[in-house]
Amino acid sequence: MSVTAPSGFRATAVASGIKPEGLDLALVAADRTCAAAGVFTRNRAQAAPVVVSRDHLGSGQARAVVINAGCANAATGESGLRDARETARLVADAIDCRPVDVIVGSTGVIGVALPMAALRAGIPRAAAALAREGGALAARAIMTTDTRPKEVVVEFPLGAGTARVGGMAKGAGMIAPNMATMLCILTTDAEVAPPLLASALREAVGESLNRITVDGDTSTNDMAVVLASGAVSAPAILGAGRDYDALRDALLRATRDLAEKIVRDGEGASRFAEVRVEGAKSPSDADRIARTIAESPLVKTALHGGDPNWGRILAAVGRSGVAVDIDRVDIHLGPVWVAESGRARAYEESLAHRAVTEDPVRIRVDLHAGKASGWIWTCDLTRAYVDINAHYRS
Amino acid sequence: MSVTAPSGFRATAVASGIKPEGLDLALVAADRTCAAAGVFTRNRAQAAPVVVSRDHLGSGQARAVVINAGCANAATGESGLRDARETARLVADAIDCRPVDVIVGSTGVIGVALPMAALRAGIPRAAAALAREGGALAARAIMTTDTRPKEVVVEFPLGAGTARVGGMAKGAGMIAPNMATMLCILTTDAEVAPPLLASALREAVGESLNRITVDGDTSTNDMAVVLASGAVSAPAILGAGRDYDALRDALLRATRDLAEKIVRDGEGASRFAEVRVEGAKSPSDADRIARTIAESPLVKTALHGGDPNWGRILAAVGRSGVAVDIDRVDIHLGPVWVAESGRARAYEESLAHRAVTEDPVRIRVDLHAGKASGWIWTCDLTRAYVDINAHYRS
Repeated sequence: MSVTAPSGFRATAVASGIKPEGLDLALVAADRTCAAAGVFTRNRAQAAPVVVSRDHLGSGQARAVVINAGCANAATGESGLRDARETARLVADAIDCRPVDVIVGSTGVIGVALPMAALRAGIPRAAAALAREGGALAARAIMTTDTRPKEVVVEFPLGAGTARVGGMAKGAGMIAPNMATMLCILTTDAEVAPPLLASALREAVGESLNRITVDGDTSTNDMAVVLASGAVSAPAILGAGRDYDALRDALLRATRDLAEKIVRDGEGASRFAEVRVEGAKSPSDADRIARTIAESPLVKTALHGGDPNWGRILAAVGRSGVAVDIDRVDIHLGPVWVAESGRARAYEESLAHRAVTEDPVRIRVDLHAGKASGWIWTCDLTRAYVDINAHYRS
Repeated sequence: MSVTAPSGFRATAVASGIKPEGLDLALVAADRTCAAAGVFTRNRAQAAPVVVSRDHLGSGQARAVVINAGCANAATGESGLRDARETARLVADAIDCRPVDVIVGSTGVIGVALPMAALRAGIPRAAAALAREGGALAARAIMTTDTRPKEVVVEFPLGAGTARVGGMAKGAGMIAPNMATMLCILTTDAEVAPPLLASALREAVGESLNRITVDGDTSTNDMAVVLASGAVSAPAILGAGRDYDALRDALLRATRDLAEKIVRDGEGASRFAEVRVEGAKSPSDADRIARTIAESPLVKTALHGGDPNWGRILAAVGRSGVAVDIDRVDIHLGPVWVAESGRARAYEESLAHRAVTEDPVRIRVDLHAGKASGWIWTCDLTRAYVDINAHYRS
């Protein structure tokens, strides 16, 4: 179901020939123009579809999202922008809307031109195949090195009834915050004013997709977009209050679920870990330390080996760039308090070992410097990550 | 030869039992008190030997360096400091000097107490075995996951004669700049005032050991120290000028040689690469971008695969945090100009492939934003890195 779980949306996918084989073109379309919002990669190398989609979303509305796998249309200059705009126009012609109401997303190899012939033939076929039950097909088509599709449906109370958020995402590699380093398409049948939808999306992504890291590499193509059809019979959300909170919480549950699925399916990942940093002077200090730990190759390989090597965690805290008093730092692995005031505690090695083989592995660092905290989800670094990425392109 | 190549030094190593087997304790001693200087890790989690040795070097002189493998004596609190100080005292008693003239270095697992019984027995044995030809033995004893010892000897003209710099280093993992994330012991038989020796060492390390990265993890124990015996018959270096320049250049040649050996022997490394960033607004911008590229797991795995995946290089430039105009960025792989103004150029794929399988691989990025440049040496990320680090401790 995913993006087609909420009323007012249809979706599908086709094999257009962008990739040598398999589904590579997903289309999600609303029955009428929706309120819409997006957040995009903070990488300064922004792919053409990011530039075009951000521009299109300036209106606060959209009717469709088209995503291709197999080619990122990144580092493609002016001709890449022309191709992204033509892609939007092809969808607009096929479903009878304005090109500016089409969001374009791409994923795949950087520096290669979109094979427009494949899109010119594929998009009309996709538009003809749009269906209420097409969400699952679309979620499969946007996969790259993902091993499984990532879908979510969340229900939430709205007015006297029930509304839904549906979503799909792709992840796997080039996964780091700023922003989520992936493609995430969300839909809802709530009716909501565009600025409120944008703010709810930002809040949700900040506490989910922006708190994950697989390899610290932020992609050129990341985007999370949401379309609100208003097809459910409930009052429109036009201001702050209970209904806004319900929508934001539903978006948060959906993006958290997708964020966890992305990390668990991180390239080569065999273990999932939550790194929490508490007692920081500021949330940004806490986040910076959590990310340094979560992205340390030595911490990630120890995690892979099920090795409670807290010395590597302490070393990562020390090199994070935050002015930490290392002599006050405590480290906990699950229920086991392994380091106190920057030095070893007496603990049962077997319990510490068990703590780093649990699911999830919980790493908690207390700086005893303030009241702020932060967290991040990550996975281990394995031989499989190396195998996948040493030979992805060639 | 290494540290015993210059006149006035003896060295040796013994198997003291800190490690289950093999050499684990190296001792380098000068015949008389030397001018001495050191640079230390910028990690805020500083191991006890770093704290003690920085303190001891405040005097600008030293007589001996003792290094143990098998235990980092890091995150060991007050008792760790006591152990490091006792280690210095044991050496002082054995060779008849002051404890403050002994530099202590440690490498190994973090968070474990130094087994002082092993040191109490081992240090007198080492002192009794000191020999003019003991440098090679010492270089072997400081290895951890290194696959080979790292030694260097450089000759340079001084006055009417010839002086020497000798050096040994260990590296392999937890290798990133700030500072060199390793242990490096240098000796020279030149006579030089301590402040000039310190400045020559800083200059040399800044253009060598601080420009390498294996995994971005800066250790708690890094140090580079130099002792100058003055045993060569040449005028003392007491100010700026030709002799100072000759000494600094010799230290630079020695530390560059050791830096290259460290990267080439990086954990699991199979390829060596130089990343140059030119046309930056400032040297720090250039360095930051070069490091982001050199530490990107996606760039490092592509390097391993011999894949000329310049899109990952461009993406790393874009996420480096430097305000780059990505539409002006050129990328060269060896002699092949693969990207111009942020987008693909037409190039021969086979030539680009050859460029990323050469030794060294040369990655050059031109930002066209200014006149500053920077460089860094790195290696690829392989399955072997994962294997080594998933099971180092347990």
